[in-house]
Amino acid sequence: MASFDATDDLRRYPFRRRAVGARDVQVDVQFSGVCHSDVHTGRGDWGPVRYPLVTGHEIAGVVSAVGASVTGFRVGDRVGVGTFVDSCRSCEQCRSGFEQYCLNTNVQTYANALPDYADPADYPGGYPQGGYSTAIVVDEDYVVAIPDEIALEEAGPLLCAALTVYTPLRYWGVRRGSRVGVAGIGGLGHLAVQLARALGAEVVAFTTSPDKVPDALRFGASQVVVGEDPALMAANARSLDFVIDTVPYAHALDPYVQLLRRGATLCRVGVGLGTQPNEFANMSLVLQQNAIAGANTGSIRELRELLAFAVEHGVRPQVEVVPAQQVGSLWPRVVDRHARYRYVLDMRTLR
Amino acid sequence: MASFDATDDLRRYPFRRRAVGARDVQVDVQFSGVCHSDVHTGRGDWGPVRYPLVTGHEIAGVVSAVGASVTGFRVGDRVGVGTFVDSCRSCEQCRSGFEQYCLNTNVQTYANALPDYADPADYPGGYPQGGYSTAIVVDEDYVVAIPDEIALEEAGPLLCAALTVYTPLRYWGVRRGSRVGVAGIGGLGHLAVQLARALGAEVVAFTTSPDKVPDALRFGASQVVVGEDPALMAANARSLDFVIDTVPYAHALDPYVQLLRRGATLCRVGVGLGTQPNEFANMSLVLQQNAIAGANTGSIRELRELLAFAVEHGVRPQVEVVPAQQVGSLWPRVVDRHARYRYVLDMRTLR
Repeated sequence: MASFDATDDLRRYPFRRRAVGARDVQVDVQFSGVCHSDVHTGRGDWGPVRYPLVTGHEIAGVVSAVGASVTGFRVGDRVGVGTFVDSCRSCEQCRSGFEQYCLNTNVQTYANALPDYADPADYPGGYPQGGYSTAIVVDEDYVVAIPDEIALEEAGPLLCAALTVYTPLRYWGVRRGSRVGVAGIGGLGHLAVQLARALGAEVVAFTTSPDKVPDALRFGASQVVVGEDPALMAANARSLDFVIDTVPYAHALDPYVQLLRRGATLCRVGVGLGTQPNEFANMSLVLQQNAIAGANTGSIRELRELLAFAVEHGVRPQVEVVPAQQVGSLWPRVVDRHARYRYVLDMRTLR
Repeated sequence: MASFDATDDLRRYPFRRRAVGARDVQVDVQFSGVCHSDVHTGRGDWGPVRYPLVTGHEIAGVVSAVGASVTGFRVGDRVGVGTFVDSCRSCEQCRSGFEQYCLNTNVQTYANALPDYADPADYPGGYPQGGYSTAIVVDEDYVVAIPDEIALEEAGPLLCAALTVYTPLRYWGVRRGSRVGVAGIGGLGHLAVQLARALGAEVVAFTTSPDKVPDALRFGASQVVVGEDPALMAANARSLDFVIDTVPYAHALDPYVQLLRRGATLCRVGVGLGTQPNEFANMSLVLQQNAIAGANTGSIRELRELLAFAVEHGVRPQVEVVPAQQVGSLWPRVVDRHARYRYVLDMRTLR
């Protein structure tokens, strides 16, 4: 299911994956999550892309072939592919296990609109196309095993949505006794609440959708603030050790900064229209030495850790499985905050 | 020398300091530095203030009287008073030695326009007036000894300008081998270059004033980038472990964020027109997990540490001593980037 232009009119697009190389794993894709990033990339919001473009980077399926030197996977294994499918493996970040921050520009699962891949045809194996697809061929180092305890239809959103919030929660030291804010209770936020709770934190959820309150409590929040309710915002002033901000559009950050304790960080992971500026007042960060940070998914190593953590603590996305042909009708619903909480495409419907 | 309105027409203002209480130190003020904050506060840029207002919080002088229970100071001691003169002493921040972040609003050296002091007359001892004055009375816990090695005319700018950059340099772990950017080579920046160098870092200075290049090199920078020169900005991409941003007005932050290594922080300490929003693009912070932070001077404990560090490493402000009566003519020069690098008022000229 490909975008042929900047509209949401995704249609069938027959194309061939590259031949299975010695180090490659071929995956029979069964489910593919629908991420906010898919919509913005497909619509060209983040810069020009080459059409037809197949988005999707929350890919879960079963190995259907392996290359001669593959050691980690066998045909029939349940596997996942996330937001990137290769990296340089030689820069400081790749060597230290942070290939999501590859300094030579890692290979995104789809739409490498980045400088080193200005001409997508230069990429060996052709232009990477994503997971709204019936098959994908990926170097085994960028494929992860899906534990038996995790259903394939629930695996995809762990590979992007959950990982994107899990790594900052760990990086900024969320632990038992922490008090954590989760801003935005959507695809990422509903997992962030569960993950922060599983790490032992008390969680305050922030949403603009009153109907999400019972859900947020069920996911593990001890308190839900709707629409930046002034009394509750004041009651939470200077009380949070960390805020993970999953809101996928630019919004006023100062109201959340004033919830942070001295030295604490608000981390933005929702990019949305990436070119929209975020604003904060100088005074805001100065008053209690706060920081506004960003973070970009996680490494393969962190993804494996997350999957084990999700098994141990029962963290799962709340998904709605939809036939793949309907993806175009889902995109506006994702942007308009209608997802409860992640649409997952059933790619088997295309066969 | 007081502001009587929001203009720069500062004039003599005879007033009495409070009587010396048991815990108080009375200081015969000899020199008083002129800080950007004085100008913005006096002009009412940061909210309404009560006139007549005496600004100045880089105060150096000699003890002229002490209260009955004062133990730390004697008449004749060389002392300094910085940006605050009291705090609650009971909140979590005060108890842990970070009274600059007092959660009950510490008492600024002048112009407490903050909520708890909405009516300045409520403050015991009267409305705090600052250092453009011939004398000041301060609780001994908020007075520091000036080491013999530091001339009194050079002491004032250490108490605010230097402290404001020293504490973030330490907090964010600048050390031997660090590569540090200093944005803005003014009152704070010219000290930040010296301090970062003294901590063992390699320093890249950023200025809009070409004539400051030789000075910045003399202060210890190994490289000076003028006007965000594109070739030099590109050459420094992803090379800095920390940026201290002393620019006292809102400016585009993304060009500096792209100089940061993975996980590194840009710390804003220049507030300027505090209500002007700073802007950054979401994508900017996400790409290499960077943060934009703020910080607010230092504690009395950190100030004592800084003064010892300045003695050990020969860090001194470059000052221009000016008769106190001329302060009004200096304010526009401070804002218009003419100071080289800190004006210091000679308060003895008022006697």
